[in-house]
Amino acid sequence: MKAYLAGPDVFLPNAAENAAAKIAICARYGIIGRPPLNEDIARILTLPHDEAWRAIYLKDIEMMEECDIIIANLTPFRGTSADSGTLIEVGWFLGRGKKVFGYSNAATEFAARSAAHVAAIPDPIPRLAVEGFGLPDNLMIPGAVEYGGGLPIFLPPDGKDRAFDALDIFETCVAAARSMI
Amino acid sequence: MKAYLAGPDVFLPNAAENAAAKIAICARYGIIGRPPLNEDIARILTLPHDEAWRAIYLKDIEMMEECDIIIANLTPFRGTSADSGTLIEVGWFLGRGKKVFGYSNAATEFAARSAAHVAAIPDPIPRLAVEGFGLPDNLMIPGAVEYGGGLPIFLPPDGKDRAFDALDIFETCVAAARSMI
Repeated sequence: MKAYLAGPDVFLPNAAENAAAKIAICARYGIIGRPPLNEDIARILTLPHDEAWRAIYLKDIEMMEECDIIIANLTPFRGTSADSGTLIEVGWFLGRGKKVFGYSNAATEFAARSAAHVAAIPDPIPRLAVEGFGLPDNLMIPGAVEYGGGLPIFLPPDGKDRAFDALDIFETCVAAARSMI
Repeated sequence: MKAYLAGPDVFLPNAAENAAAKIAICARYGIIGRPPLNEDIARILTLPHDEAWRAIYLKDIEMMEECDIIIANLTPFRGTSADSGTLIEVGWFLGRGKKVFGYSNAATEFAARSAAHVAAIPDPIPRLAVEGFGLPDNLMIPGAVEYGGGLPIFLPPDGKDRAFDALDIFETCVAAARSMI
């Protein structure tokens, strides 16, 4: 059972260590974790932009094809919602009919984060009607996770935000995913 | 040929008029546009949150199943990237092997928008390495569009941001999509 470990974790300054820690957690639950890290990122970044991004994209898609499930880090990233690349990947697994699991290190609800964001950076048009529904993110995201994997998005159970790169909620998610596959 | 008209357009105060204008543009190119508007949104919003969001999610997925292609509004929304729900949908179409087309009313590159965002709302961890690659958004998004539909994301050709709800780039995208299907 191979799990695609999607998330903005790849942007961390210590991305390789973070990925190794996630792989070790997955292994404890009998899951082979595959992080979309590019071991040859230093070489890729020497390529012209148009070659570099396509190499990363195609490699990620190839890894997604090889994986059975996705375990997505849906912690908000540079905006009110989860990382944008991760969301493409979650949608892809849902469309492929592969199981979708996810977690977030943010305890704050989507509606509250949205209100705070709009207060800091006003919308280009007033009165945009984005409903919160008491959810952790735009409804398509918990929808993709709950209908795609049968479990909710795992959140801090104590209502306290975790550090951006914390792994305890990830482990809760991995353990629960294990019981569904 | 039915096109799912994804985008944050559904949040507009005049969402119904905007959807009608998009449907009319699609019709001129022989495409049946299907906007994910809920005609019965007033009733849905009277339901308990947990019923309301599921009703919207399941209806959207049903409409996506009925459509042949997606034409996504990828204009940035409340953050550095496109609307999060739209990204789930783009990924879903890519995963399903249905053609993906997209446009954005923003002319500014992803890297510049990201820098501006971080200046306004600092990242939770410094030195997060998100590469711009001269692209309009996170590389998974132009990747999904270019490899999913064969065309780039359509952007303002004059380098000037359009209004959030402008439809001229949408029409350019529809006309080009028509030639690929």
